[in-house]
Formats: sequence, structure tokens, C-alpha cells
Amino acid sequence: MILTRSIFRKKPGLPPGSLVYTRDPVQDYVSIQLVQYTEEDVSSSEESSVDAMLKKLDKNKVNWININGLHNVSVIESIGKHFDIHPLVLEDILHTEHMPKLDHHDNYVFLTLKMLRHDNKQGISQEHVSMLLGNHYLITFQEKDGDVFDAIREGLNNGTGRLRRRKADYLFYRLLDTIVDHYYLLTDALEDNLEELEELLLEQRLDGISEQLLTGKKKMIFLRRNIIPLREEMRKLKQEDILLIEENTMSFFGDVFDHLMHLSNTLEGLRDLITSLMELQMAANSNRMNIVMKTLTIFAAIFMPLTFIAGVYGMNFHRMPELEWHWGYPVVLLAMVLVAGSMVFYMKFKKWL
Amino acid sequence: MILTRSIFRKKPGLPPGSLVYTRDPVQDYVSIQLVQYTEEDVSSSEESSVDAMLKKLDKNKVNWININGLHNVSVIESIGKHFDIHPLVLEDILHTEHMPKLDHHDNYVFLTLKMLRHDNKQGISQEHVSMLLGNHYLITFQEKDGDVFDAIREGLNNGTGRLRRRKADYLFYRLLDTIVDHYYLLTDALEDNLEELEELLLEQRLDGISEQLLTGKKKMIFLRRNIIPLREEMRKLKQEDILLIEENTMSFFGDVFDHLMHLSNTLEGLRDLITSLMELQMAANSNRMNIVMKTLTIFAAIFMPLTFIAGVYGMNFHRMPELEWHWGYPVVLLAMVLVAGSMVFYMKFKKWL
Amino acid sequence: MILTRSIFRKKPGLPPGSLVYTRDPVQDYVSIQLVQYTEEDVSSSEESSVDAMLKKLDKNKVNWININGLHNVSVIESIGKHFDIHPLVLEDILHTEHMPKLDHHDNYVFLTLKMLRHDNKQGISQEHVSMLLGNHYLITFQEKDGDVFDAIREGLNNGTGRLRRRKADYLFYRLLDTIVDHYYLLTDALEDNLEELEELLLEQRLDGISEQLLTGKKKMIFLRRNIIPLREEMRKLKQEDILLIEENTMSFFGDVFDHLMHLSNTLEGLRDLITSLMELQMAANSNRMNIVMKTLTIFAAIFMPLTFIAGVYGMNFHRMPELEWHWGYPVVLLAMVLVAGSMVFYMKFKKWL
Amino acid sequence: MILTRSIFRKKPGLPPGSLVYTRDPVQDYVSIQLVQYTEEDVSSSEESSVDAMLKKLDKNKVNWININGLHNVSVIESIGKHFDIHPLVLEDILHTEHMPKLDHHDNYVFLTLKMLRHDNKQGISQEHVSMLLGNHYLITFQEKDGDVFDAIREGLNNGTGRLRRRKADYLFYRLLDTIVDHYYLLTDALEDNLEELEELLLEQRLDGISEQLLTGKKKMIFLRRNIIPLREEMRKLKQEDILLIEENTMSFFGDVFDHLMHLSNTLEGLRDLITSLMELQMAANSNRMNIVMKTLTIFAAIFMPLTFIAGVYGMNFHRMPELEWHWGYPVVLLAMVLVAGSMVFYMKFKKWL
Amino acid sequence: MILTRSIFRKKPGLPPGSLVYTRDPVQDYVSIQLVQYTEEDVSSSEESSVDAMLKKLDKNKVNWININGLHNVSVIESIGKHFDIHPLVLEDILHTEHMPKLDHHDNYVFLTLKMLRHDNKQGISQEHVSMLLGNHYLITFQEKDGDVFDAIREGLNNGTGRLRRRKADYLFYRLLDTIVDHYYLLTDALEDNLEELEELLLEQRLDGISEQLLTGKKKMIFLRRNIIPLREEMRKLKQEDILLIEENTMSFFGDVFDHLMHLSNTLEGLRDLITSLMELQMAANSNRMNIVMKTLTIFAAIFMPLTFIAGVYGMNFHRMPELEWHWGYPVVLLAMVLVAGSMVFYMKFKKWL
Repeated sequence: MILTRSIFRKKPGLPPGSLVYTRDPVQDYVSIQLVQYTEEDVSSSEESSVDAMLKKLDKNKVNWININGLHNVSVIESIGKHFDIHPLVLEDILHTEHMPKLDHHDNYVFLTLKMLRHDNKQGISQEHVSMLLGNHYLITFQEKDGDVFDAIREGLNNGTGRLRRRKADYLFYRLLDTIVDHYYLLTDALEDNLEELEELLLEQRLDGISEQLLTGKKKMIFLRRNIIPLREEMRKLKQEDILLIEENTMSFFGDVFDHLMHLSNTLEGLRDLITSLMELQMAANSNRMNIVMKTLTIFAAIFMPLTFIAGVYGMNFHRMPELEWHWGYPVVLLAMVLVAGSMVFYMKFKKWL
Repeated sequence: MILTRSIFRKKPGLPPGSLVYTRDPVQDYVSIQLVQYTEEDVSSSEESSVDAMLKKLDKNKVNWININGLHNVSVIESIGKHFDIHPLVLEDILHTEHMPKLDHHDNYVFLTLKMLRHDNKQGISQEHVSMLLGNHYLITFQEKDGDVFDAIREGLNNGTGRLRRRKADYLFYRLLDTIVDHYYLLTDALEDNLEELEELLLEQRLDGISEQLLTGKKKMIFLRRNIIPLREEMRKLKQEDILLIEENTMSFFGDVFDHLMHLSNTLEGLRDLITSLMELQMAANSNRMNIVMKTLTIFAAIFMPLTFIAGVYGMNFHRMPELEWHWGYPVVLLAMVLVAGSMVFYMKFKKWL
Repeated sequence: MILTRSIFRKKPGLPPGSLVYTRDPVQDYVSIQLVQYTEEDVSSSEESSVDAMLKKLDKNKVNWININGLHNVSVIESIGKHFDIHPLVLEDILHTEHMPKLDHHDNYVFLTLKMLRHDNKQGISQEHVSMLLGNHYLITFQEKDGDVFDAIREGLNNGTGRLRRRKADYLFYRLLDTIVDHYYLLTDALEDNLEELEELLLEQRLDGISEQLLTGKKKMIFLRRNIIPLREEMRKLKQEDILLIEENTMSFFGDVFDHLMHLSNTLEGLRDLITSLMELQMAANSNRMNIVMKTLTIFAAIFMPLTFIAGVYGMNFHRMPELEWHWGYPVVLLAMVLVAGSMVFYMKFKKWL
Repeated sequence: MILTRSIFRKKPGLPPGSLVYTRDPVQDYVSIQLVQYTEEDVSSSEESSVDAMLKKLDKNKVNWININGLHNVSVIESIGKHFDIHPLVLEDILHTEHMPKLDHHDNYVFLTLKMLRHDNKQGISQEHVSMLLGNHYLITFQEKDGDVFDAIREGLNNGTGRLRRRKADYLFYRLLDTIVDHYYLLTDALEDNLEELEELLLEQRLDGISEQLLTGKKKMIFLRRNIIPLREEMRKLKQEDILLIEENTMSFFGDVFDHLMHLSNTLEGLRDLITSLMELQMAANSNRMNIVMKTLTIFAAIFMPLTFIAGVYGMNFHRMPELEWHWGYPVVLLAMVLVAGSMVFYMKFKKWL
Repeated sequence: MILTRSIFRKKPGLPPGSLVYTRDPVQDYVSIQLVQYTEEDVSSSEESSVDAMLKKLDKNKVNWININGLHNVSVIESIGKHFDIHPLVLEDILHTEHMPKLDHHDNYVFLTLKMLRHDNKQGISQEHVSMLLGNHYLITFQEKDGDVFDAIREGLNNGTGRLRRRKADYLFYRLLDTIVDHYYLLTDALEDNLEELEELLLEQRLDGISEQLLTGKKKMIFLRRNIIPLREEMRKLKQEDILLIEENTMSFFGDVFDHLMHLSNTLEGLRDLITSLMELQMAANSNRMNIVMKTLTIFAAIFMPLTFIAGVYGMNFHRMPELEWHWGYPVVLLAMVLVAGSMVFYMKFKKWL
């Protein structure tokens, strides 16, 4: 089931910022990675505790802190304290059903969105990802190990390209861009899927098509619900004046907005396509019914009169002169052939055959 | 029936602010509670009359006045007189069918909204709740005893957390937040309900499904009608500059707005889902009809020709040479098997079987 | 038929402001009433001519002039001349199909709208009402005698309440408010009506339901066409700065706007409800068809094989050994019972029975 | 066919302003009329050539130049040269499929719109009309002789009314108003037509109704496509500050805007009505099918069992004791009556009869 | 299949501006054409390499550089380096699935759009075209040889008209205008196609109509997806102040905007038409089913009773007095005729025949 309900939420009436993770944790440990780089060098380490990590922070480097696992609320709290993050922002990090949202504070930029990936079992797997961009650091919060950022880690280690030369805002862009690029894989897969359904429909193979169309529609709705709010947040980003993001990085965010625009247009097209396929299915269903009914009617129109004639000469009246005629039987058979023939002819004329 | 009609309204032509409660009162008494607190201490009491309560008010404390029961118009009037409330605002407090609305006056902020709760009998129970936020007081008006604020009362008594340290505007936020949190319970229940319907549909168990889909749709419409206007009012609140609400409380109202945004998005998704389920139901219905018709046609196509053949040899012509043949009967039986077999074969070929 | 066509309109090509009333007059006389009041006293009289009425006008009083009957164009013209009204405004007074519209001139405010009332014959009766608010006067134009303002006339005579103490702008508000209050009666009646239809549908009593749904939908469209433009005009009024309306009367117009907002929300909900009912009707129809078809198929599936068997043993072959068996007949009867039984069993298994 | 395709357009790739009229000319000559008037006198003449007409122009009079026939491009070009018209405006005059558009230049105002009239053959005939309003002149371009302006010509000759006293801008308004007034005749005719269809539907006379509904819908779409863009252009006109139009003429254009607003509201209502009628038709169709199927099922339910019973006693077994009973035949007949009777009773109980 | 998926896109996670052309190149070479012209003369040449072409550039002429073939990324890169183009713009040139987009930089204007042409095999062929307008140059990038610009090349060589006298911005307009003109050919073809489908539907020839309607709808969606974003980009162009485009060229871009507006209106109309045709198809289908069912019911209603009567007198009871009557057989035949006759009469009365 794709349209997952909001399972994590504070109990009604609890004060805001009371950080409670009520969801079944998707993994039972928290792993903290710290990547630090300048144009010259890069180092990455797995930290055992938040404090150990915080001690290592170096204001002359770009510090990328990645937290996998949200169930240990104290980790979030100590990070929040150290970087002076608003309690409601911390709540949003934990609120795994929060919609995509960009929040612009004085000392940091907060973005929460969904990392979507193809999943064989459920169709689409989603993970709640939050990013905190500060002056010399970027913190990413994920629900569990494993993400789509490996190409970026590789790029950092190789040291080629703009990535190492730029600040944390560019890393922020690259992570966002990578997540959005993965959205394309999902819309592509959905489009492939719908094309297959279209072919099945055109070949009149209707079994199970309703269920598949419903699944496709739910995927489309799911993607729209994640992509369109993010697009709107990026639109805001374009219009605002954010000091933490340098001007020449800004145009890259414009590019991400373009991609989200393209994605939402594609989804619009897929919505129209699904509607058309449903109409095609209805027409096909109705057409099939017509064929079935015609077949039935043809049988009835031919055999009912014939059976009636046979019935007449099966009556046991003592005086039925035809029964005694020498050619009675062949004449009746001939009459039957004529009746059946004229029925067939009439239906050919009406284009039923 | 969910879409309740506006029962309470002044008779056409009556002057505005003529406070008349024409509805059958849901309870026959008015109860007045007064909770007063500072960071240091908290006291709460049940007052016998408005005057007694007004005497106790203390400008150095936060005074939370809760009125349960709206049928005694004089209570509303004397409160209105004491706090200098506009007659139209008083009318809105009594007008139990009023839409969610925020009204910003010089000396107070007025908010009216619906407190919604799950109800086993009617599906959703609603109660008209109004709040008046003044400088050192918050007045809440409810239709009857029993509400969703118990967690807040407990929080006040425990004295932990921000609640006791902040002004009436924060209490105002917390009450609003609690009401909105309860909306989530309803959308969750609706979503559960629709998922069950989806499963029934996918298993082709269609009995009573139309009625249940209609009920689901009406719940969805009902929730939309309460949530979307409230969202719009909160959007206005975010944009206005209200002196009675401190700046650092304001961000909490932004959070409420986010929740309402999330809720309305969820309802949008549920609307799409209901539409999809209706289409699925139509397709299932149509499919079932196809199966029924096919069965009928198969029977007709096999037995009509056979019965005709039997009818032919039941005719009583004196000269029917086949009747006298030694192998006549077995040959005809064989012919019947062949006819039936070719029909079955043809229908297998057409994929009807 | 509710969606009445624009019968009154000047002939194409005629100059504007050429006042011609081409409609069949709904009454054959014009009656002119003048009500004059101050806080101290009130007088009301029926005037024989416009001139007589104009002479009586007193700038120190509020003068409410009510004109019933529009066919006598000269009445409108002389009033227009006296109060210096723009010819196009006069045309709008006569143009009984004009949409609700508020027009703000230097020396007067013009509002035209529809007075709607429940009518047993036609469902809803409409009357074109125009109001001209000047400095010390309010002129109302109606198509015929009889209106919804009796409660206000009574209020004026009783002399209690704000009405007598305030200026013409407050009277203007009260008349408008009364008309809008009557809209509620119509939406309530429509809602009742739709609830009845819903019950009929849930009980599968479908006769004549299409026609009734169509009538309901047309009523809903009709109400929307009158209420939504009026709401938009009132929204404009709220935003504009009109000298003729005092500031403390303005908040009352805000209240009228709220009511119109509520009404249009209710109509939105009714529109969704009607759509749902139509879908329910389609599902019920389709369901009924399914039941009919199943019944037919059950009969065919049981009796076609049986009749065939009987037909076989009705054949007249000379050598049909079964016919001569001692237990032939009972065995065949038993076979028939078995065939019928297995059919019934199969259909029970398929949940058709 | 109403939705006429854009036949006239320059060949792709040709430069703009290259005036080519590729359409089959609707008339093979160009007629040029010049009407000149002041408050004192009026003269009108048919000119043989553009040059002759241009020589006659008098800056102290209002000069109304009417060109019927667009195929002679040189006429348009020489007018364009004389009055200094932009080449793209000239192209729009010839582009007979251009949408309604108002263009405001320094020395002239350009308006192009469609003159629509009822036509017995095609339903609606359209003619592309353009107007150029200059300081002392108004030029109208029409595709062929014959228009809706005769009432205005008469008004000019009679010399009564505002028309002769005002400038060209007022003439511009009157022509526009006349064209818009004719739109009403078409929406009225459409409304009549739909009401007839509704009655046919309510009487269940469904033959050819689909085609008529389609025609109605296409007319509605056609009218919307012409009226709504014109409404938007008039809205712009209201907001702009155009020197060529005097302030007291401006309010008349506001009146035209109101009419267009009313028309588009009416069309909105007609659209809803058409949708409702289509739904009614579907319900009627489905209802009719239900009746047909019920009839069939009733026949089958009654006669299949009876025929089976008759078949049983038509079997030729040697030992069938019933056949030899004295009352065998009447008993079987009675049994048949009982079976038929109980079927009828059951169906009455199920409300099928 | 029209709704082509985005095949070309950088691998998720790759840095922006990393120019990789992953699509199967549509042609295996890159051809570079340079056209240089002033009012006096024109020269055009096919260049072997970018460097050779860049050397020839002359700032005193208009330089139109046309690149056919995008797979050779180094060509794009060296052009980008020479003219100082932003890496993201270069990426957009290669990104063949990019939506229409106008980008306004300091030293150049970038426009990317789709060149659409009728194609016999696929219906519509699309080609990704990008244009870079600089101070004295215009660069066009196409996917392969062959385009719609031949008329413009001819116009340049002939030297007549505005084209040679104006700057690169006018050439930019003419190329854009030509592409948009070709969109008309496609909407015209679609309109023709839909009219044919309408005729087929009105003649009740329903075979394959669903598939053709789906194809039409997909074409319409495809055109909308290309035309509407381009219209919005042109709207922006109208509102911005772009130094590279002279003021008197600007009005020509307004004309292109008008055409795109017209096209999107036409597509809106076609969308409505397709919906109507689908409804017509459903009504026709339903009608046809009704006819089939009626035929069946008529046969059943006539022959079931007759066959039953024949069956009764085919029973073998020893005592069936009718069988021995002299006129028994003719009387039964007469009875049969009466039964059949009354059935026919009843159905005529019910208007089923």
C-alpha cells in the first residue's frame, strides 16, 4: 500500500518540540558519519557519539555530518543544542510523514524531503531525509543506512570537479539534485508500466487491468504529493535572498527547480494517460459485452424459430395432414434451412456478423 | 447524516447581534471554569456565575475561562459587555454552524472552529468551539461538557514545560494545536476505512460497497469543509501582524499551518483515492456482468443447437428414414457430442472459457 | 423551468439608456411607498405619484422609498432625473435578468440582486430587486408587491433597536441581510430534498430519481449563479472605501459577506453530494441489472440442459434401448435432478445464489 | 461543422506583414462606404476606390469608413499606409481566424472580434470584423456585405439621440454593443434548444438525442471561445487609460463588459446543463436496458420451466405411469399453471412487475 | 508512441554541466553551417570544424551558426567556451527532453523548444532545437539535418524584405515564428482527424474508434505539453526588458505570443471535442447494446410461448382430448398465430418495434 498514513506524530495535546519517536525504529542503532573536506584534502570517519563528532568539527573545512537512524532522540537533541536549532525544526526532522518543506532561519537553512527509490516489494520505498545547511557545515538526517549519495562520496574522494572547491551550499545542492534525479527513475518506471498496460488494453487483454490501473494511479498520486510541494518550496528558494547560499550556486538551484517542473509536467501527462486508459478499458469492456450479447442473440434468433417448427411437427394430433405427406419431412427441413438462412442474411445485412 | 444543516440561525429579518439560541440545547446547564496560572502557581475553580468569575480575574496571571453550554444567552452577553466584544462576534459564538474564522480586533483575537472527534454512532461528532484571546485572558466557548483539552489541563497542573512560563497567546496556540491534532485521528480513520474498502473491491466483494463509498466521500467532504477554511484563516494569521501574539509564539502558529496544509493534502489524496475506488467498483461491476452474460451465452450456444436436433427427431412424420436406421440413435447422439464439442472448442479459441 | 432566459433586454442596436420594459409586466400598476424616520418618530405613506413623493422628502430624516412595479418607465426616469442617476444604472434597474452587481458612484451606491423565495409551483421564485443608497435616502425597486421586508418595517415602527438610531446605510445593510437570510431557507430546503433522494437511493427505489436529481442540480446551479456573484460584489465592498457607508456599519457588511461565503461553501458541498448521488444511482442501476441478468442466467443454466435431456428421450428413433428399460424413466428423472442439483451447487459455489 | 479550422494563415516561414489572403474570397468585390457626420448633418456614400475615399476625409467630422471584402489586399495596404497602421495589425485584419483582441497603439485603437448570427443552414454563421478607432475616424473591416449595423445607420440618419453629438469613440462603442447584443440571440436560441432536448429526455424519447446534445455542446464551446477572450479584452480596456476614448464613454464600455460577463455566466450554466442532460440520457438509456432485460427474464422464468415439464411428458419411455393416468393431462396442466403463477407471484414480490 | 520518455539525462549523482550525450545519436556526424549577412551581401558555408567557423566570425555582420547533431559533446563545449555560455545552458542544449524554456543572461538569450513536424510513421516527429542569441550572432542547435527553415534561407539569399536589413534578433524571431507556424499544421491535422472520427461515430461505425480517440487524445496532450510552456515563456519575454532585442522587434514577439495563445485555445477546444466524442461513443455503444438486447427479447417473447404450446401437444398422455378433435391441429396453429400477433402488437405499442 503506497499511500502510507502518518504513523509518527506526537500524541494529541503534547507540547511542541517534545521529541518522541513513536514509530517502530527501522534500524536499532544510530550511525554518525563525518566527512570533512577542503580543496586540498578530504577525510571521512564513523563517529561513536555526537560529542566525539562535534569535537572534530573544523570551521575551515566543509563538515558534512550524516546521521542514519532517528529513533535515538537524544542524538537529535544534542545536535539541536549545539547548532542552536529551533525545537519545531527538530520535531520536523523526526516527523517522518512531514511534507517537503524549506525553512529559512538566520543561521541555517532547513530542508526536509523524501528520498524515493524503486523497491521490488512495495513498488516505491520512501525515506524521510532532512538537511541542515549552516555556515561551514551540512547535516543530513536519514531514517536508516543506505542512500543515493554514493556517487557524491566518490566524487569527494576523487577530488576532481567543482565539488571540493566549493562551500557547503554546493554540497547541499548536489545532494538535493541527486535525490531529484532519482525521482526520474520512478516516473520513467511508471511510464513504462503504463505503456505496457496500454498495449494489453489495445490487445483486449483485460484481466486484472483495473487493479493495475489503480496501482499506477496510486503511484502517480504518491509521486505528485512528494514532488509538487518540493517544487513549490524550490520556487520560494529562487525568489528569496538567502545569505548562506552564494549567488553562483543559486543558478544550480534554479536548475533543480526546472527538473521538478519537468517532473510535475510529466506526472500531469501521466495522469491524463491513466484517465484515457481507464476510458479505453471501459470502452473495451462495453465492446466485449456487446460481442457476447450479439453472439447470444444470433443463437437465439436462429434456433428459437427452428426449435419451434420442430416442436410443431412433434405434436401428437391425430389429424396433421403434413405428417403423412410423402415429402413432408424434407420440405420441413428445407423450410428450416430457409428460415435459418434468412436470419443469417438479415443479420449480415445489419452488420451483426 | 454528516452534512448537518445550519439549524441555528437568527430568524430572517431580525437585527444582527440579537442573541437568540434557537437550537435544542445539547445540555441544559452552563458550566463556567476558571483556570489561573503564573510560572509559580496554578489554581482552577468551577464558578457559579459569570459575575463571581469576573471578580476573580487577576491581570497578573493568565486567566483561562472556559464556558460549556451556549443556550444561556445572558452568560455570553455579560462576558461580551465586560471584555468589550463586538455584537457580531458574540453572534458568531452562538452561530454553531459558522465556518472556521479568525477575526483580529484591537483588544482581542477571535477564532471560531470545529472540535471534531470520532463518534461510534454518527461517525464524526462536531462541536462548535470559539476562542477569545485578550491581553491576560483566554476565553473558550464550547457547546457542552467534555473536550480534548485534558492533556493541557494536566500539563498546567504539572507545571513542567513552557506552558506555565508563557502568556495566554501560547495557551491559545496549544488549544488550537490539540484540536488540529485530533483532526489527524479522523483522517487516519478514514484512510483505514478506505483501505478496507479497497481490499473488498479487489476481492470482488461488492455488496454494500456503494453505500460505504458514499459514506467515505461524505466524511471526506465534511473534513475538507472544516479544515480548508481553517487553513486559510491560519495563512492570514501568519501574514498579519498581531500585537497580542508574541513573535516567538508566532512560529508555533506557522507549525499549525503546516499541519493543516498536510491535512488538506492528505484529504486531496483521499479524494483521488475515493474516485479511483468508484472507478474500480464500476469496472468490477461491469466485469461481473460480463461473466454473467458469458455464462448465459455459453449455455445458450451449447444447448440451443442440441435441443433443436432432438426436436427434429421428435417430429412425427411418417417418413423419416433416419428414425428407422439401425444406428440412427447413436449417430445422432454422436452428432450432438460433435456439435457441443465444436462449440466448446470455438469458445476456448475465443478465450471465453 | 428554473434557468430562466433573459427576456428583458433592449432590442439589439438600440442606444443605451433607452428605457424600454419589454417584458410582460408582472403587475399592472406601480405602487410607491415612502417611509421616513428619525430616532424620535416614524411615518409611512403610500404615494400616488413620484412628484408627490419627492416633495415630501426631508433631508433630516432617513427616507426609504420603495417602488413596486417596473413597467412604468417614466417613474424610473423621473426618479433618475431627481437624484442624478447615470442612465446605465437606470437600465440595470429595468434589466430584470442582470446579475448581482454593486456600483459605487460619487453620490450614491447601487446594488442589484435577486430576492429568492420558495415557491410551491416553480420551486424557486425570483424577483429582481435594486437598491440605491444616497446620503439621506434609500430607494428600493421591486418587480411586484410583496417582499421579505415585513420584519424590518415592523422593527421600524416598534422603534426599538439600532435601526431607528442609525442612518440609511444601516437600513441598506438590514434589507440586504434579510434577503441573504432567505437564501438560507432555499439551501436548507434543497439539502432536505437531497437527503430524501439519498434515502430513496439507499433503499433502491430508483423510479423518477434521475428527474429529481436533475431538478436538484438545476436548483443548485441557479442558487450558485445568484449567490456567488453577489459574494464577489460584497468582497469588493469590503475592500473599497465608500464614504456613504459609515465605518461601524462596514463590519456588518463583512458579516453579510461571511454569510454569503458560508452559503457558497454549502452549495459547493451540495454539488459534491449531487455528484455522489448520481454515482450512487448509476451503481444501483448497474447492480439491479446484474441481479436481473443473474436471474436469467440461473434459469437458463438449469432448464436448458433439462429440456435438452427431455428432448433426447422424446426422439422417435425405432431403436432407443433406454426407452424400453424398466427403470428408464425414473433413471432419467434422477439424472435430471442431479444435473439441476449440480448447477445449483456450482452457482452457490460461485456465490451467484 | 462549427469548430472551423484556421484556413487563412500565411504560409509557414513567410515574413510577417506579408499580406496574402489565401482563403477563397467570400465575395469577389470590395465595397467601400463612407459615412461622415457632425451634430448638424450626415452624409453617406459608396466610394469606388480607397484614394477617392481618403480625399473626402474631413477632420472636423466623424468619418466612419466601412470596408466589405478582404480579398483585395491592396485596399488594406493603402489604408494601412495612410493611417500609419503597424503591419502586424494589418495581418490581424486579414487573419480571419484570429481570436478577439484589443490592441492599443499611440494613434489608434484596434479591436478584432467575430460578428455571430443565427444561420439556418450551419447553425451559426461567423464573420471576422475588425475596427480601427482613430482621432476623427472609425474604420470597420468586414468579410462581406450585410451586417448587424442597420439600426445604427438609421439612428445616424434620424439624427436623434446621443450618437450624432458624440465622437467616433461613441460610435465604436455602439457598433461593439450591437455585435454583443446579437450574441444574446444565439445563447437564447441555444437555451431554447436545450430545453427542448430536456423535455424529449424526460419523455424518454432518446432517438438522435446524442447527436443533438453534441451539436449543442459544440455550439456552447464555439460561443465560449468567442465570448470569453472578448470579455478579457474588455476587462483590459476598463483598466487601461486610453486617450482616444473619452471618460464619459468609458462607462459604456463597462456596460459592454457587464454584458459579456453575463453571457459567459449564462454559457457556464448551459455547460452544466448539457452535462446534466448527458447524465440524464445515460440514466435513461440504462433504465431502458433494465426494462428490456427484465422483460426477457420474465419470459424466460415463466416459459423455461413450463417447456421443460411439457418436454418431460413428451418423452417416449415405455413405462411412464403418469401418461396412463386418467387425470394425468389435467393434473400436469394444473401443475403448469401453478408453476407459472408462483413465478409471477415471486416477481410481483420482487417488484419486477 | 508519442509520450516519449526522457532518455537523455545525466546519470543520477553526476555533477551538473558534465556534458554527456547518452542517447543513441540520431545521426553519426556533426554538420556546422555558417551564414553571414548584412544588408548588402550574404554568404553561407559548410564548416569542417568549430575552430574554422569561429575564425570566420565577423562582428559587422549577422552570423547565423547552425549545428546539426548533438552527440559530439566537444563541439558544444568549444562553442560554450568561446561565447562564455553557462554550463547549465550547455546541459539544456543536450538535454533533448527539456521543456520549452527561455533564459535571459547578460550577454545572450537562450531559448530551447521543440520543432514538431507531421510524420507518416509516428504521427508527429519532434526535434529538440536550441537557440542562442548574442550581440551579432545567432546559434541554432538541432539534433539532425533537415529542418523547417528553408524558406528563411531562401529569403536571406533573395535579399528582399526586412530580414537582411535587421539584426540577429529579427532572425531569431523569424526562426521561432516558422517553428510556431508548423505547430498549426499539426493542430489542423488533428482537427481534421477528429472530424473524421465524429463522422464515423455519427454513422455508428464504432470499430477501432476507441483506439483512434486515444491516439487523438495523446496527440492533443503532446501538443499541449509543448505549446503551453512555450506560451508562458513568451509571456515572460513580453514583460521583461531584454537589451539584445530591439524595441521594434519586440512587437513581433508579441505576435508569436498571440499565435501560441490561439493554438492553446484551439487545443482547449479539441480537448472538449475529444471528451464529447468519447461520450458520444459511449452513448452509441449503449444504444447498440439496447438494440441487440431488444432483438433478443423480441425473439424470446414470441417463440418461447409458441414452443411451449407445441410442447404441450407433444406430450404423450393417453387421454388428451384435443389431440383427437377433428380441428385440433388448425385451432392450435391459429392460437399460436394469435399469441405471436398479440406479442407483436404489444411490442409495437411499447415502441420496441
